[in-house]
Amino acid sequence: MSKPIYVLSGPNLNMLGQREPEIYGSQTLDDIHKSLSERGAKHGKDVKCFQSNHEGQLVDIIQEAGNKASGLIINAGALTHTSVAIADAIRAIDIPAIEVHMSNVYQREEFRHHSYLSPVVIGLICGFGSQSYELALDVLVTDAQK
Amino acid sequence: MSKPIYVLSGPNLNMLGQREPEIYGSQTLDDIHKSLSERGAKHGKDVKCFQSNHEGQLVDIIQEAGNKASGLIINAGALTHTSVAIADAIRAIDIPAIEVHMSNVYQREEFRHHSYLSPVVIGLICGFGSQSYELALDVLVTDAQK
Amino acid sequence: MSKPIYVLSGPNLNMLGQREPEIYGSQTLDDIHKSLSERGAKHGKDVKCFQSNHEGQLVDIIQEAGNKASGLIINAGALTHTSVAIADAIRAIDIPAIEVHMSNVYQREEFRHHSYLSPVVIGLICGFGSQSYELALDVLVTDAQK
Amino acid sequence: MSKPIYVLSGPNLNMLGQREPEIYGSQTLDDIHKSLSERGAKHGKDVKCFQSNHEGQLVDIIQEAGNKASGLIINAGALTHTSVAIADAIRAIDIPAIEVHMSNVYQREEFRHHSYLSPVVIGLICGFGSQSYELALDVLVTDAQK
Amino acid sequence: MSKPIYVLSGPNLNMLGQREPEIYGSQTLDDIHKSLSERGAKHGKDVKCFQSNHEGQLVDIIQEAGNKASGLIINAGALTHTSVAIADAIRAIDIPAIEVHMSNVYQREEFRHHSYLSPVVIGLICGFGSQSYELALDVLVTDAQK
Amino acid sequence: MSKPIYVLSGPNLNMLGQREPEIYGSQTLDDIHKSLSERGAKHGKDVKCFQSNHEGQLVDIIQEAGNKASGLIINAGALTHTSVAIADAIRAIDIPAIEVHMSNVYQREEFRHHSYLSPVVIGLICGFGSQSYELALDVLVTDAQK
Amino acid sequence: MSKPIYVLSGPNLNMLGQREPEIYGSQTLDDIHKSLSERGAKHGKDVKCFQSNHEGQLVDIIQEAGNKASGLIINAGALTHTSVAIADAIRAIDIPAIEVHMSNVYQREEFRHHSYLSPVVIGLICGFGSQSYELALDVLVTDAQK
Amino acid sequence: MSKPIYVLSGPNLNMLGQREPEIYGSQTLDDIHKSLSERGAKHGKDVKCFQSNHEGQLVDIIQEAGNKASGLIINAGALTHTSVAIADAIRAIDIPAIEVHMSNVYQREEFRHHSYLSPVVIGLICGFGSQSYELALDVLVTDAQK
Amino acid sequence: MSKPIYVLSGPNLNMLGQREPEIYGSQTLDDIHKSLSERGAKHGKDVKCFQSNHEGQLVDIIQEAGNKASGLIINAGALTHTSVAIADAIRAIDIPAIEVHMSNVYQREEFRHHSYLSPVVIGLICGFGSQSYELALDVLVTDAQK
Amino acid sequence: MSKPIYVLSGPNLNMLGQREPEIYGSQTLDDIHKSLSERGAKHGKDVKCFQSNHEGQLVDIIQEAGNKASGLIINAGALTHTSVAIADAIRAIDIPAIEVHMSNVYQREEFRHHSYLSPVVIGLICGFGSQSYELALDVLVTDAQK
Amino acid sequence: MSKPIYVLSGPNLNMLGQREPEIYGSQTLDDIHKSLSERGAKHGKDVKCFQSNHEGQLVDIIQEAGNKASGLIINAGALTHTSVAIADAIRAIDIPAIEVHMSNVYQREEFRHHSYLSPVVIGLICGFGSQSYELALDVLVTDAQK
Amino acid sequence: MSKPIYVLSGPNLNMLGQREPEIYGSQTLDDIHKSLSERGAKHGKDVKCFQSNHEGQLVDIIQEAGNKASGLIINAGALTHTSVAIADAIRAIDIPAIEVHMSNVYQREEFRHHSYLSPVVIGLICGFGSQSYELALDVLVTDAQK
Repeated sequence: MSKPIYVLSGPNLNMLGQREPEIYGSQTLDDIHKSLSERGAKHGKDVKCFQSNHEGQLVDIIQEAGNKASGLIINAGALTHTSVAIADAIRAIDIPAIEVHMSNVYQREEFRHHSYLSPVVIGLICGFGSQSYELALDVLVTDAQK
Repeated sequence: MSKPIYVLSGPNLNMLGQREPEIYGSQTLDDIHKSLSERGAKHGKDVKCFQSNHEGQLVDIIQEAGNKASGLIINAGALTHTSVAIADAIRAIDIPAIEVHMSNVYQREEFRHHSYLSPVVIGLICGFGSQSYELALDVLVTDAQK
Repeated sequence: MSKPIYVLSGPNLNMLGQREPEIYGSQTLDDIHKSLSERGAKHGKDVKCFQSNHEGQLVDIIQEAGNKASGLIINAGALTHTSVAIADAIRAIDIPAIEVHMSNVYQREEFRHHSYLSPVVIGLICGFGSQSYELALDVLVTDAQK
Repeated sequence: MSKPIYVLSGPNLNMLGQREPEIYGSQTLDDIHKSLSERGAKHGKDVKCFQSNHEGQLVDIIQEAGNKASGLIINAGALTHTSVAIADAIRAIDIPAIEVHMSNVYQREEFRHHSYLSPVVIGLICGFGSQSYELALDVLVTDAQK
Repeated sequence: MSKPIYVLSGPNLNMLGQREPEIYGSQTLDDIHKSLSERGAKHGKDVKCFQSNHEGQLVDIIQEAGNKASGLIINAGALTHTSVAIADAIRAIDIPAIEVHMSNVYQREEFRHHSYLSPVVIGLICGFGSQSYELALDVLVTDAQK
Repeated sequence: MSKPIYVLSGPNLNMLGQREPEIYGSQTLDDIHKSLSERGAKHGKDVKCFQSNHEGQLVDIIQEAGNKASGLIINAGALTHTSVAIADAIRAIDIPAIEVHMSNVYQREEFRHHSYLSPVVIGLICGFGSQSYELALDVLVTDAQK
Repeated sequence: MSKPIYVLSGPNLNMLGQREPEIYGSQTLDDIHKSLSERGAKHGKDVKCFQSNHEGQLVDIIQEAGNKASGLIINAGALTHTSVAIADAIRAIDIPAIEVHMSNVYQREEFRHHSYLSPVVIGLICGFGSQSYELALDVLVTDAQK
Repeated sequence: MSKPIYVLSGPNLNMLGQREPEIYGSQTLDDIHKSLSERGAKHGKDVKCFQSNHEGQLVDIIQEAGNKASGLIINAGALTHTSVAIADAIRAIDIPAIEVHMSNVYQREEFRHHSYLSPVVIGLICGFGSQSYELALDVLVTDAQK
Repeated sequence: MSKPIYVLSGPNLNMLGQREPEIYGSQTLDDIHKSLSERGAKHGKDVKCFQSNHEGQLVDIIQEAGNKASGLIINAGALTHTSVAIADAIRAIDIPAIEVHMSNVYQREEFRHHSYLSPVVIGLICGFGSQSYELALDVLVTDAQK
Repeated sequence: MSKPIYVLSGPNLNMLGQREPEIYGSQTLDDIHKSLSERGAKHGKDVKCFQSNHEGQLVDIIQEAGNKASGLIINAGALTHTSVAIADAIRAIDIPAIEVHMSNVYQREEFRHHSYLSPVVIGLICGFGSQSYELALDVLVTDAQK
Repeated sequence: MSKPIYVLSGPNLNMLGQREPEIYGSQTLDDIHKSLSERGAKHGKDVKCFQSNHEGQLVDIIQEAGNKASGLIINAGALTHTSVAIADAIRAIDIPAIEVHMSNVYQREEFRHHSYLSPVVIGLICGFGSQSYELALDVLVTDAQK
Repeated sequence: MSKPIYVLSGPNLNMLGQREPEIYGSQTLDDIHKSLSERGAKHGKDVKCFQSNHEGQLVDIIQEAGNKASGLIINAGALTHTSVAIADAIRAIDIPAIEVHMSNVYQREEFRHHSYLSPVVIGLICGFGSQSYELALDVLVTDAQK
């Protein structure tokens, strides 16, 4: 059976539904994970979802993804803008990775306009709420079918 | 009947298939336009595609879109990084706009990392070749169905 | 008979009255043009008004003004901040030019605080809505009477 | 009877007529004050003019204007570029203020291109010699008549 | 018969002979075009000359040159410093291009010291008046003869 | 009974009393925690103190504070200057937070002059050694009594 | 009897209660001065309060404080960000000085994030309204008692 | 018996041998650890090696080294460029520390040219693959013998 | 009889002898003034000395010097780095002015390396304590004798 | 007889033919010197060629050229980007100087994009290999014939 | 017999033992040269040492090393931070070069943190006094034995 | 007998009298040397003058001055702005050094506003033509007499 797709979310994304709903909406991260699993299942694809507030754990899981997954979707949250370690972990693995953000980061503080991850992923999707994750999943599923 | 979706492509995108194929692939812009029309048709949605090397014409069409379209997909090419006029045109209309790029601009020259358009669109999709356009279309079609 | 005064407006100013009324008010550009003509007429001065979304056309008209007009009022809109070509055209003609803006550009995004035009005009008027144009006209008419 | 309009001039503007006449002309500040009073009188409007080389006094008068005047015209001279205190004083009062400069500051040293005052006034007029003050007065008188 | 060489001149270069003669001399652009044609003819080489104030038209002609010409000489004028679109057009064609300027841009305003075109042409010639074009023509003719 | 106040200290603050005593004094973090508990007790307020060298744990505890505490005092140490994740965690909770530093960070290296936390807390206290924590506690206790 | 504590407030703080109440509250500076005197009296400490819109006067009083006071609390307002002279005056005296701000300056314009005073005071307290002054007084009183 | 030397490696260095072999070679981190232990043993010196992807754990171990080790060799990987916390931990201990990198960081992305660690270590060795660690060990062993 | 030479000293220079003696020595400003008067007298030249902590007063005196003095020596202290108003006053008068500093400002904080005054004086002397004033006096006396 | 033209080449250009042939080709500097002499001879013009790795010697020769030559062609190599002394030497002589580079410096490291020489020469030619020297010679020979 | 290793030291390193001993120790450069020769001899390797205060001579010797040496150790002293010419010379030769510094340059002035040489050498060793040279020698000797 | 004072002049100062007389006057460097020797003689002080276009020679002479002279006057010309090596040489000697410039460098190009030498000399004198050297000599002679 084919390898799963890993979906990683970084610091404070476990607060979804509680935190700043005017930016992030009322959906919880569990809702999103469930919806992604179902969407993957439709294409016969396993989807494994993780969240951590710890940069080190995110690096650990990305390294694991390099061995066990066929693709990676990552919303590194605040670490997008500060973590070279996560970028290096993505650079070190051989599977396609996609960067996603729920909000349009370019409408927020200037320090959110720079991402250490963008140069090491195949592409970037931002601004569509939980749909950002779904579009990324569609890309990886399509890729897998080519 | 519902309003169409406008798809705009800026300078040099008419060269697709000829120009720097290692970055942009061998598909022509006509191929992409055709494929987007078919994808729109599946959802009962008209898709109108335009290309221009002229900033002024792009502004004209965006203004027209404000009156005649239900959504806008724009790949402004090189003008992404230099045109305040196009950004102002998008800001002046009341329909959702999505910025797309075929290449991952963050893997190219630094001046391509800044976009005047990003703060005025709802979201950004880049790095997936012609699929960037398709994902944007999916978002607008989904929105329309809500 | 004396040469007319040219009034030029750049990209998106044809949207006046529709676009962001909280910044620009509900008056249309036609209303402004009409009012300027009447104000000019009172001083026995012909006023010719143009608008274009195309940088190249603005350059063409400025060159024409150099031959046919006695003065130039220019609101280059978004091109104020990006067009060296328009600034060069003004520098190349021998008639007095005044830069105007309807909004107070210093209360908006930082990239609107720089103007390529300011160093090549005789003066700048901004923040007074359509009255910015009128004050500029008063200056040129006064000059002509000296 | 209606409140007067205050006209404030900052450091070294008392040197007008003596200082760098190739930039500022031969008119003295007294000439300008007299001319503004007459222009105000024509519209039944009292005009009170002040000059000081002291930032603190300018702040004092701006605060006074907040209580006693219907509008403020300010040419802060060199303090335009260095005084947050004057900008804060203007921000703290509830009457319309206009920033004026006699010379076109954008044709001079780069440090003169930034103004702390521009974001807190309604508009800016520069480059027209003493006429810059007159145009500002016209705006305030017109406003008062609306 | 061999393909011609295209010579392109950008905004305001049609003003040559009228505009700022202390920088550009009294020769008109027509004079230069004529002289280049004769110089080309001596080497059995057709020379086609164009001028436009419109960025979009310059992009159009560069694309045409990619198909019809054996080499390109471009003086993009003010657009040298602001147009990524023209640079991308040159990057997209497979013929040698040379950037020329009549004046020594390094003795003028700082914003004229940066060129988007320089990294995509084979070489740069500036400071020699109309002779800048002639030297570029000599290079392309020599190349063609190798 | 009322909710407790959380006091958080970041990396290397567990070294207090050992590390660079000329900057931080000879008091240990335990001494400070004990003293804060006593001070809180005087006002009938429970004070819970934590220290961690791990950014992720600090985020975890801040999220917990959002549910269980009435106020937060945070000395994020070195992470003050590098952690967007901690700032986002504070932004995401609805209780008042105060940033404290024992040393006057403005007398140290320039990179310590910028704090990601300052814009998301109600206020900042720095330079008073362990008294910085005490003053912050006084503010939160006073607030609670209003 | 022991020397008093000096409390200095800079430009526009005399407007407290009138000016931008959403930032500064409705308390007047007189209210604050009275409250600080009473708080000082409780600890048997005289508190002398001053306000001036003039940088030079603030320098004069700081120099006087160096001779007559046991400590200095300073809210230099706008001059915080522009006055090297005030910083030098504080550097030149031998008594402890504390910088206070009523608002959280880090939530306001970027030019308010830099203070010339911070490196020359013992500590900084900002964001707690008039309580910022009170906390500073508590520090100086405590110090005096050691 | 003398205290051991600690060798610390940061994020993604556990990937050595798998990750970007053109930069880092095919040796694994275990190979390097083994080789360093043998080299230390020759000089009668115990060498303890650690790797972690977690900034917090690296801080913990550095603090431990301060108590238990005679010297520290650290290759902080990506955290070199982002972690003030690790730099502060090194600053807080009293044993000599040496910064090492396997690759020549100055031939890579610009953000890798800055290290928060360099100012707090005694010296820096980079560019010699696993030999960078060995040279650092030679320094510490030599020091110990003086 | 010939006009006197004016010597101006800015903020905090009245503290000389008390303030930071390791930088400025133990001589008072009165000592320096006396010594300059005697030195001037030897050359039959009157020397008038002033000190003020107020920028506005310094501007006033510079303007007076323009009418009454034959030369100006100015040590503007902290205002050197922040006052455009003083620089403009010097620019506006027609007598030679010399900038002096007692300390070598280039060995102090970076913000002291920039002077608004340097471009408007004939020359600069710094680093020689009170001798800096004396050398400047020698220059002006020599000039006067030519 | 007419004065010769001096041709100067700076550091490492003596390595031509050996060094980085993918950038500079296989021609030696002697080959170029010989070819330039022959080209000069055809126009009855003596050409003297020099190379030095020493900035001071280049300055010496430029000063000599000021006395003995009718024109100067200079490829200062690496010193182009760092030597104000060479630029000053060129500024100090009264003969026309032309800056040449064999490679297109704008396609190389960013520090090679700035030249201290460009503002003091009449023009710049770069990117054409040894032909860059030849074109410069053509300009100087043409000038001489006018 | 195998080629020697060249050791180059730049400006002011001939002052070692006299100059700033708190940074550089009391050893002379001759002592270091002798010690390196002995160390080389142990490995059957000739070591040739040079010092010069002249950038041009350093370039000359590096070029010579390219022909006669098997490796290069360079401490360019102050020229490290200013000489593109030396970097180009190293780039132009085909033998391994190592950059060394005796002091930890990252603990000194900011302009010493940038090196033009680092990107063109195989590695960098700094902070270990004369041992920096010895470690570099060990690397080159080891390389030679592979 | 007492040690002499060394006077050093850098690149292009041998051109004095020929070069840009509007900036430097018509006096030659020999004239200045002669005048300084006479001035020194009056105070019983030997003055030795040197000029070189070579940075390395200037470093050599500064080192010599450290052994043989009692003071150093240096006008490093263009090298003032680019040579860390000369600054290091001055830092390495134990005699007082004074930086002089004939022109007011702050009225010239911006790159002339920064000096590597200023932080390592006791003081700076600029703008007084050859008198700048004389004033420096006066300082050193006065010092010697204390």
